[in-house]
Amino acid sequence: MTTANNDPDARIYTAALAIIGNEILSGRTQDANLAHLAKTLNTWGVEMREVRVVPDIEGEIVDAVNALRARYDYVFTTGGIGPTHDDITADSIAKAFALPLIEHPAAIALLAAHYPPGELTPVRRRMARVPDGADLIENPISKAPGFRIGNVFVLAGVPAIMRAQLEGARGFIAGGRSVQSRTVSVLVGESRIAELLEDVQKHYPDTDIGSYPFFRKAGFGTALVLRGRDLPRLEEATESLRQALRGAGIEAHEGEIPA
Amino acid sequence: MTTANNDPDARIYTAALAIIGNEILSGRTQDANLAHLAKTLNTWGVEMREVRVVPDIEGEIVDAVNALRARYDYVFTTGGIGPTHDDITADSIAKAFALPLIEHPAAIALLAAHYPPGELTPVRRRMARVPDGADLIENPISKAPGFRIGNVFVLAGVPAIMRAQLEGARGFIAGGRSVQSRTVSVLVGESRIAELLEDVQKHYPDTDIGSYPFFRKAGFGTALVLRGRDLPRLEEATESLRQALRGAGIEAHEGEIPA
Repeated sequence: MTTANNDPDARIYTAALAIIGNEILSGRTQDANLAHLAKTLNTWGVEMREVRVVPDIEGEIVDAVNALRARYDYVFTTGGIGPTHDDITADSIAKAFALPLIEHPAAIALLAAHYPPGELTPVRRRMARVPDGADLIENPISKAPGFRIGNVFVLAGVPAIMRAQLEGARGFIAGGRSVQSRTVSVLVGESRIAELLEDVQKHYPDTDIGSYPFFRKAGFGTALVLRGRDLPRLEEATESLRQALRGAGIEAHEGEIPA
Repeated sequence: MTTANNDPDARIYTAALAIIGNEILSGRTQDANLAHLAKTLNTWGVEMREVRVVPDIEGEIVDAVNALRARYDYVFTTGGIGPTHDDITADSIAKAFALPLIEHPAAIALLAAHYPPGELTPVRRRMARVPDGADLIENPISKAPGFRIGNVFVLAGVPAIMRAQLEGARGFIAGGRSVQSRTVSVLVGESRIAELLEDVQKHYPDTDIGSYPFFRKAGFGTALVLRGRDLPRLEEATESLRQALRGAGIEAHEGEIPA
């Protein structure tokens, strides 16, 4: 039986996200980037391990990015790369890397091509500033580039632009095997199945088994989500769970119960 | 002119949130607690300053909670307090405080009253475990208590239960003055207003001015959000912004532009 642990190619690539923005911390804006980023990275074989939401304060951004980039293969930031005074992400990343902040010539060219002649104002030029040595991350839908420096990827906060930039970042990212998941739903509460679930988890330590209560039209119940990188092993753990549920007289529904 | 800085009663109370859960990190589940918690705390005069999302791994939870509780007045955790094997928040908080984990007698009484006789199984008793010395946080809608130990408040991840428990936590929380906000929207891009915005920000350093691009039926534009604890000062900054916009020939709309 092959498990992820015995597979020499199964290096696990990890990522973290720093969400930069007072508007997320105040509750004004609901983050819409984490779920998309986590799912996309997983298809690339990279696992999201930590997220921090920090305010628009340089020292806070520097500390968070430095803590995260030392620990994970890739760090993504969202937010704070527009033209206004509260857009301080580029400055903060340069400081985190102790690099000078420069105007990237290719970014200036992109902006110059976008605005009418004479309208590339000093304020707009701010959007071309990157730490010295950064690569631009272009995107198909807007002129605004993100950038990469070291293992840190700096993306926009506006979801449509962030998603486009993330596609532009694809070429910089090496990944391993994706995490696959299987979901089995039951119409009983968590406490009815806690013991058998723990038993299955003990037999399949390389499969991550999560248990999530829900309240739907069909009633209340629990979604059981199994996740792992080794597909045959994941199928085996899922079948073992189905059998355990059957043995306890509990009907197992494949997938999520509709809302 | 009174500013927050000159007001001896204007101590700022701060909070952080640790969201515990693989399902948030994987993108399976969208967090629905941060915005509610941030807005509720603000009405209580407490400001959300940092959020971390961490996986269901004891060491990660311990490290995050210990970092946050040393730094902020209050720390909230959501998730991981159910009856299953992946619910390890109580164990992790006890470890963070180096306290034994005990069964809280009042929590056992709540659970015993909820389940039919003989059905308070060992698995269900898990939900009564708290660090020794913790206070229960009861809630009006369900039996499941959260708990408080030191400055850490441990709440459920299911939003309806979390919200009810948060009401139960109200009595433990002292706050200062709430942050008030004013929003002015303009139908021009950020780069058109960046300079005047920075100028207003410089004159009102105690008011936090954020600028958020939007794409709505009415067109694309920018929401300008001013936030501060001193209401007259906030009104003055907002009026100064309106005047600056008028001077630049840009129409200011009060509030958000509808979607």
